[in-house]
Amino acid sequence: MSNVEIPTEQWAQVVEQIGGPAVYKKIAVGKPGPDEVLVNVKYSGVCHTDLHAMMGDWPLPVKMPLVGGHEGAGIVVSRGELVKDVQIGDHVGIKWLNGSCLSCSYCMTADEPLCAEAQLSGYTVDGSFQQYAVAKAAHVARLSKDISLEAVAPVLCAGITVYKGIKESGVRPGQWIAIAGAGGGLGNMALQYCKAMGIHTIAIDGGDEKREATAKLGASAYVDFFTSKDLVADVKAATPDRLGPHAAILLAVSEKPFQQASEYVRPRGAVVCIGLPAGARISAPVFETVVRMIQIKGSYVGNRQDTQEAIDFFARGLIKAPYKTIGLSELQSVYDLMKSGKIVGRYVVDTSR
Amino acid sequence: MSNVEIPTEQWAQVVEQIGGPAVYKKIAVGKPGPDEVLVNVKYSGVCHTDLHAMMGDWPLPVKMPLVGGHEGAGIVVSRGELVKDVQIGDHVGIKWLNGSCLSCSYCMTADEPLCAEAQLSGYTVDGSFQQYAVAKAAHVARLSKDISLEAVAPVLCAGITVYKGIKESGVRPGQWIAIAGAGGGLGNMALQYCKAMGIHTIAIDGGDEKREATAKLGASAYVDFFTSKDLVADVKAATPDRLGPHAAILLAVSEKPFQQASEYVRPRGAVVCIGLPAGARISAPVFETVVRMIQIKGSYVGNRQDTQEAIDFFARGLIKAPYKTIGLSELQSVYDLMKSGKIVGRYVVDTSR
Amino acid sequence: MSNVEIPTEQWAQVVEQIGGPAVYKKIAVGKPGPDEVLVNVKYSGVCHTDLHAMMGDWPLPVKMPLVGGHEGAGIVVSRGELVKDVQIGDHVGIKWLNGSCLSCSYCMTADEPLCAEAQLSGYTVDGSFQQYAVAKAAHVARLSKDISLEAVAPVLCAGITVYKGIKESGVRPGQWIAIAGAGGGLGNMALQYCKAMGIHTIAIDGGDEKREATAKLGASAYVDFFTSKDLVADVKAATPDRLGPHAAILLAVSEKPFQQASEYVRPRGAVVCIGLPAGARISAPVFETVVRMIQIKGSYVGNRQDTQEAIDFFARGLIKAPYKTIGLSELQSVYDLMKSGKIVGRYVVDTSR
Amino acid sequence: MSNVEIPTEQWAQVVEQIGGPAVYKKIAVGKPGPDEVLVNVKYSGVCHTDLHAMMGDWPLPVKMPLVGGHEGAGIVVSRGELVKDVQIGDHVGIKWLNGSCLSCSYCMTADEPLCAEAQLSGYTVDGSFQQYAVAKAAHVARLSKDISLEAVAPVLCAGITVYKGIKESGVRPGQWIAIAGAGGGLGNMALQYCKAMGIHTIAIDGGDEKREATAKLGASAYVDFFTSKDLVADVKAATPDRLGPHAAILLAVSEKPFQQASEYVRPRGAVVCIGLPAGARISAPVFETVVRMIQIKGSYVGNRQDTQEAIDFFARGLIKAPYKTIGLSELQSVYDLMKSGKIVGRYVVDTSR
Repeated sequence: MSNVEIPTEQWAQVVEQIGGPAVYKKIAVGKPGPDEVLVNVKYSGVCHTDLHAMMGDWPLPVKMPLVGGHEGAGIVVSRGELVKDVQIGDHVGIKWLNGSCLSCSYCMTADEPLCAEAQLSGYTVDGSFQQYAVAKAAHVARLSKDISLEAVAPVLCAGITVYKGIKESGVRPGQWIAIAGAGGGLGNMALQYCKAMGIHTIAIDGGDEKREATAKLGASAYVDFFTSKDLVADVKAATPDRLGPHAAILLAVSEKPFQQASEYVRPRGAVVCIGLPAGARISAPVFETVVRMIQIKGSYVGNRQDTQEAIDFFARGLIKAPYKTIGLSELQSVYDLMKSGKIVGRYVVDTSR
Repeated sequence: MSNVEIPTEQWAQVVEQIGGPAVYKKIAVGKPGPDEVLVNVKYSGVCHTDLHAMMGDWPLPVKMPLVGGHEGAGIVVSRGELVKDVQIGDHVGIKWLNGSCLSCSYCMTADEPLCAEAQLSGYTVDGSFQQYAVAKAAHVARLSKDISLEAVAPVLCAGITVYKGIKESGVRPGQWIAIAGAGGGLGNMALQYCKAMGIHTIAIDGGDEKREATAKLGASAYVDFFTSKDLVADVKAATPDRLGPHAAILLAVSEKPFQQASEYVRPRGAVVCIGLPAGARISAPVFETVVRMIQIKGSYVGNRQDTQEAIDFFARGLIKAPYKTIGLSELQSVYDLMKSGKIVGRYVVDTSR
Repeated sequence: MSNVEIPTEQWAQVVEQIGGPAVYKKIAVGKPGPDEVLVNVKYSGVCHTDLHAMMGDWPLPVKMPLVGGHEGAGIVVSRGELVKDVQIGDHVGIKWLNGSCLSCSYCMTADEPLCAEAQLSGYTVDGSFQQYAVAKAAHVARLSKDISLEAVAPVLCAGITVYKGIKESGVRPGQWIAIAGAGGGLGNMALQYCKAMGIHTIAIDGGDEKREATAKLGASAYVDFFTSKDLVADVKAATPDRLGPHAAILLAVSEKPFQQASEYVRPRGAVVCIGLPAGARISAPVFETVVRMIQIKGSYVGNRQDTQEAIDFFARGLIKAPYKTIGLSELQSVYDLMKSGKIVGRYVVDTSR
Repeated sequence: MSNVEIPTEQWAQVVEQIGGPAVYKKIAVGKPGPDEVLVNVKYSGVCHTDLHAMMGDWPLPVKMPLVGGHEGAGIVVSRGELVKDVQIGDHVGIKWLNGSCLSCSYCMTADEPLCAEAQLSGYTVDGSFQQYAVAKAAHVARLSKDISLEAVAPVLCAGITVYKGIKESGVRPGQWIAIAGAGGGLGNMALQYCKAMGIHTIAIDGGDEKREATAKLGASAYVDFFTSKDLVADVKAATPDRLGPHAAILLAVSEKPFQQASEYVRPRGAVVCIGLPAGARISAPVFETVVRMIQIKGSYVGNRQDTQEAIDFFARGLIKAPYKTIGLSELQSVYDLMKSGKIVGRYVVDTSR
């Protein structure tokens, strides 16, 4: 197997200091270690997390200078001596979890996102906003060659994350999930994953446009928080036995849904937190939580198995994630839209321009 | 099978109005319906819940006039025509869950404590502070005849409740549980159940007396909230890998432990709420809950299977629940001690005096 | 609520001795006990089990004289004094499990089909081949009024049984199940339940007609045991990673599939036995079972919750179970077809003629 | 961190051809790859599997020439460049699973014993019957320094294997397990693990000596297959409700227990196969397996997490595994005893002599 030709320099978007901006410039191409691969990134999705990383918004220290990006889809062009199960030419995805120790108690039990030594793409190591990115071979997502590298990019973070949340909810085919924030990018994917899994959904969002859009994606019911006079009652009423959904998935960017969800899920119901509104707190009365046996749980990103499962649903055509493609050179304009709150839909960058 | 002689009148403690007091007087003996048994209660434990019922403290409507009590141990003296699996002469326990519909979605899945039609002993139906109490046959706890009716009484509520909480935590033999409020009556039982199940415990309470007492009951570690400068750090440090316990069981009567527990459990850890401090709220930061994948859950009373399992551990001599026995006629004095906060340990009433 | 007029006599099919035949005659209408309902059966499916019961084929003693039938759909016309959650006029289903004790360790843990005191419709108690049948209220299937009583009949045994088997397999949406006997009545339902649950199926049966029929019902692959030279290899090859399906559901009426299935499921795979070929044995080599960690398990009929879930999938239009309707008076002709091996498809009897 | 001095030659037991014998000779010391460690083996347990490997008894190809051994306990003396979480000087165990790919669907879900690329110590790679052995860092068992390297050796295979089997049984504290072959080495460990986990055991073996020995190790009951007239009835009768144990663990070296176990476990019971009698088959009637919902499953060796848990129980003093220590040079004499069926108890070899 002969390696393809690999340049020594490449285009990348580099954040040189906390607060940004991202600078489009040429930098050296990295070299994979013995257990790593070098990936020629073709496309990469842009996530709010990338902006948070650049701005240093989170309590977790971020690498500087930084190449962001954690939804990269590309082709393996080189690999370390220990790598056996990924071949040159394989299509792979670079996701938020770039690597982990593979031997702590979490890695040993398939909970590698909880590994204390986890490396995060575009955060603690350079990510996919460059033409050639290094990643741990054991962690890259395996993509069959008939999957569009452009279309799969947003699945590599958003898709995996909502799929994981649905799994963590414990809800089975035939049961009901309420999705708070169903009209957004993650919400749209959650609706489709639920449908593919035989799960009924109650979409919660605001406005008639969202009502129509979520209905098209298979939502069984819609509750409009602009017009509902009693959201808790309306969500409960949307289930046939009026007991409320078996779980709620919280994708919203405000705190209020965290308080409501524990009220509208049925007894034994699960409230799964995924979205991370800045500084938000979960709060629920102890009495009702106990006598109704409610569980409130956080769901982070998927593990490697979740990743392959989430991609498999996409590969079978069951998950559509609309996006707009721009050149990698234009990345800062997406951040500008995000900052001004004017972003609509998901962006994917093409690293060739 | 001939029935034993059953009187038409009996001694009971009757609360005639919200606020009490309980009045020791003679009332008629009830008659069991077709699916019920009449139990000659010999002993009954006294629980804080009995005081709450008398005082109307909770948002749940209480029957008036009311015979309280939900930790009754006695002998079946009569049964309805449909009752086949409980015999006259059997020893049984009357617990918080007196009956349930047995056919709703919760009853069908062994979650009968969540039945919307559940009947509660000493709350929505008359309980065990009388010499003869009626109970649904399907719900009475089965007691083998070599179990002391006096000693088992407190197990029928406190024991079952903590055992259920441990099961709900998902913790396996060899793992670690922190018990907030380990020095109290429920805490003492929780320590013993954990030990019997091969689970390590970190007792959290205040003072050296509690330290010694919890050590005797098998606690692997003790964290003193009177003297600890950083309780979260100290609880984590008590586990061999310093990651913190796999779960916390909250038995405390104040709100603070609810906030701390989600910080000291390890990633993927469970915070199990059992105690019901008046008006308390659970609160946790969304960010840490998500990235550490913490779950916070309420655990109510056990189902019928949990009941038999909890009693089985007791029957094998693994659970000691100290108590003081007084006459049923003296019940009000226990309430008075509770009200003044001067109660120490658990009381059991003897219905024969 | 006034009861509808109930006749004292009715038409029924009565088996008067082991070996049959079934005799169409008038018998008295039964009276429900305190926890029972009287159901005006409108339609009832005919199952091979009914023939086995008449012929005394099984090691389980059968009631004589016997009114068979355990797939009855009808309307409640009377109820006992303890029955609260079923109303006169409600539509209900009479299934194999007519009643159970509701208080043994199995009933307490939602495994009532394993209750030692279970009563079986059309086997240990009279079943649904009569116009008015008695059933335990806690056990009748609840049917919403927009469900066709005729069409739902076969779901009440066949549908519930295959749905239970799929649940017992532990297979999740996105994974693979092989169905041995996919072309038969149970197999057709299994394919549809799997599809509704997001599970991929490999249909195993013989001939091109079955190939087409199973493809229409959503099978992802077909293995023809008439033409396959290596069935084990072919089943494995039908899964994308060629490791074999995550489980096999065995509905066949011969013994061979029991031996093959443990070879073609992937490591950690489950072999779920449902069909009951006379005198058949499960057999597997210990070595491969251990090093591949295979599990072989029996799945009997569903519990009450499984029943409601299986019916819910039907009610949403996801399960089609073709049948031919004849008069109750013609029942023996179906048995004759069964005995001669000439039966095709499922029969439903109309009790009005 | 300076490496300790490592010789270039060492003593080892080398099997040069199928059939043996093992030859005690000097061979070169191996070098660890980037993700491997070199372990100075101090002690190694001797297992029947080592004899099977030498004799080529199994359908799995064995490396030749071969250094056997897969229960090695020693000290890390060197490590590859990628190894971060194992330090020079750490105490570690070399177990049956020497390495696995860490990225297949089994490795990703903590089922690495099922990895198709798994490397097996003393079978597909050289094992622990040498003074210096190479092992994958991610797979060596971590041993705290207060654990005796001599005493822990037999735990590294036998202990982990029975502990895994108990976990796979799904039995919870307070429930019952029958152990077929309880009087042997694995059986003794199984009894102790069960006791440490709060599980009741029924020891099945032959003779009064085994009765006494198993009672000392905590067995709740004993069934003697020499004297029992109806073993199935006797095992059932040993449980308080006479329904039989919740599971059976099969450690025996004959086929008969495989047939009996599915009869004496209670409905929903699990039959866990661990022992590997040559050519043995599992066999059970389909009818009873289905209507009693029995599961029969194979349990292979533990994964890495199971390994750490099994060792942890040992480290706390709860598991005693008696052994006799001889020099590595005398290994062939143990094989001779095994071949003649005269071996009693477990042997450990000291590599220093």
